[in-house]
Amino acid sequence: MSSQSIRLRVSVIGLGLIGASAAAAWKQAGHFVVGWGPRSATRDAARARGLVDTAPDTLAEAVANADVVVLAPPVLAIRQLIRDIAPHLSTGTVVTDVASTKASVEEWARDILPPNVEWVGGHPMAGRETAGLEHADTALFRNRVWVVVPSISASAASVDRVVRLATDAGSKVITMKADEHDMAVAKVSHVPFMVSTALSDAVFGNARFADWAPVAATGLRDITRLASGDATMHRDICVTNRDNIAKGLEEVSAVLADLARQVRELPNPATALGTRELDVLGQTFRRIKHDRDGWLPNAK
Amino acid sequence: MSSQSIRLRVSVIGLGLIGASAAAAWKQAGHFVVGWGPRSATRDAARARGLVDTAPDTLAEAVANADVVVLAPPVLAIRQLIRDIAPHLSTGTVVTDVASTKASVEEWARDILPPNVEWVGGHPMAGRETAGLEHADTALFRNRVWVVVPSISASAASVDRVVRLATDAGSKVITMKADEHDMAVAKVSHVPFMVSTALSDAVFGNARFADWAPVAATGLRDITRLASGDATMHRDICVTNRDNIAKGLEEVSAVLADLARQVRELPNPATALGTRELDVLGQTFRRIKHDRDGWLPNAK
Repeated sequence: MSSQSIRLRVSVIGLGLIGASAAAAWKQAGHFVVGWGPRSATRDAARARGLVDTAPDTLAEAVANADVVVLAPPVLAIRQLIRDIAPHLSTGTVVTDVASTKASVEEWARDILPPNVEWVGGHPMAGRETAGLEHADTALFRNRVWVVVPSISASAASVDRVVRLATDAGSKVITMKADEHDMAVAKVSHVPFMVSTALSDAVFGNARFADWAPVAATGLRDITRLASGDATMHRDICVTNRDNIAKGLEEVSAVLADLARQVRELPNPATALGTRELDVLGQTFRRIKHDRDGWLPNAK
Repeated sequence: MSSQSIRLRVSVIGLGLIGASAAAAWKQAGHFVVGWGPRSATRDAARARGLVDTAPDTLAEAVANADVVVLAPPVLAIRQLIRDIAPHLSTGTVVTDVASTKASVEEWARDILPPNVEWVGGHPMAGRETAGLEHADTALFRNRVWVVVPSISASAASVDRVVRLATDAGSKVITMKADEHDMAVAKVSHVPFMVSTALSDAVFGNARFADWAPVAATGLRDITRLASGDATMHRDICVTNRDNIAKGLEEVSAVLADLARQVRELPNPATALGTRELDVLGQTFRRIKHDRDGWLPNAK
């Protein structure tokens, strides 16, 4: 029997959309899946829907003898959860997570986990507007990127175990360091959420919006879509990726202020055609469009 | 025969996507449509595709005896075009346009048009990523908003003629003043384009983007979609809606700077849960999401 086909005992702690979907995908892939959530109704539902093989009542039972423990609560709850499971972990267990930021979580794991277990962070780049176990979908991670973030002390075998789970869920694995990951997701995900939110505030939050609404169209809908994301999740992301997000926001704020200055300095519209100032702004728009269009075929 | 069924002689000047689509829609609705573009190849194509009833070689012939002249070139070209057609217009002709901004165009019309014709501005809220006559589509304006902007001196009969064309193209008409229109589209369309562009610049324009690209997903794609819009059109929009756009950009820039400050002041992630600062940011996100979700069912 090759190591690739060994059935793992996987304990999924937190049965929201991500945890429940992963649990079901791993059960489908042939692993033995233990599920746990703080509410008994959630554990009952996970059992009844066949998302897990078993769902014991206590956290201690849920993590005992696991090959891999997967932490899937909201990110700010992970620190206390690590404290709670630490006394009950078996030697050799690999602990991983699915949180949106990686540096804080890695730090908590390093500070709190006992030396006989190993930490390998994880971040599946998947989500949906609908939350909760009732929307669990084994296809949620298919063809998505699953970032694996090994701690410095993690052995190759431990990393492989997490890589295998990500692969068995249908994802493509990439490996990053925690600080590289947090910088990258700030740029392509967290700052865009904040920009979408800031624009939504300036538009929908204005008392005069009713006057403007008749001319609003699909462009406004698409650019503000991210602002309808989960507020608590994004709040927790801000706390755990503070510096990268603040720096990114200041950067976009400065680009906008500079564009405002360029617009204010534009020539009079009656005499504008053919002027040099006009060419500068048009070239700026063309350059940015070109960069964005170049990436577009790679957008997933 | 009711006035509603009188066949109008409509001259469409400028046969890009908008002009050609409107010409074809009006021909289909039973009007007599004259088309003109500066290039003979365009006039030939309009004739060959049956988008117009006739496409004379000169601008003078194209506007002669028109009930309505529709100006559909890029907005900054409209001023010279009004100069060019002015000597050839017949008494009682209504001149309208389809440009994205209305105050500058209205000013040019007031300054240049002879007193025996009337100006009624127009802005169909329709567009497509593909430009040019070869993409002409009679359904382009169906169920869209067509803003009609009567000049102070326009008679009710002249306004009705433009309203009828908009309606015959399948659009829903709303009437606004030029400055109200320009403020509204700045807020819901022009500033969103600039925000999308600023964010695209900060992301795709960064030399390190290749490092971040593997974790980029559909959220980034959607929020940067507007930045792929036509650069020249948006440059011209900036020139003709300068103050509204600059003010809107400064406003969003300030909201972003304030969010950056709030993020920097967030509590330490290890002790954040349950703190008041955390609640404030979460409530901000929830309020903005609530405002946006409330509008969403009305988004077209």
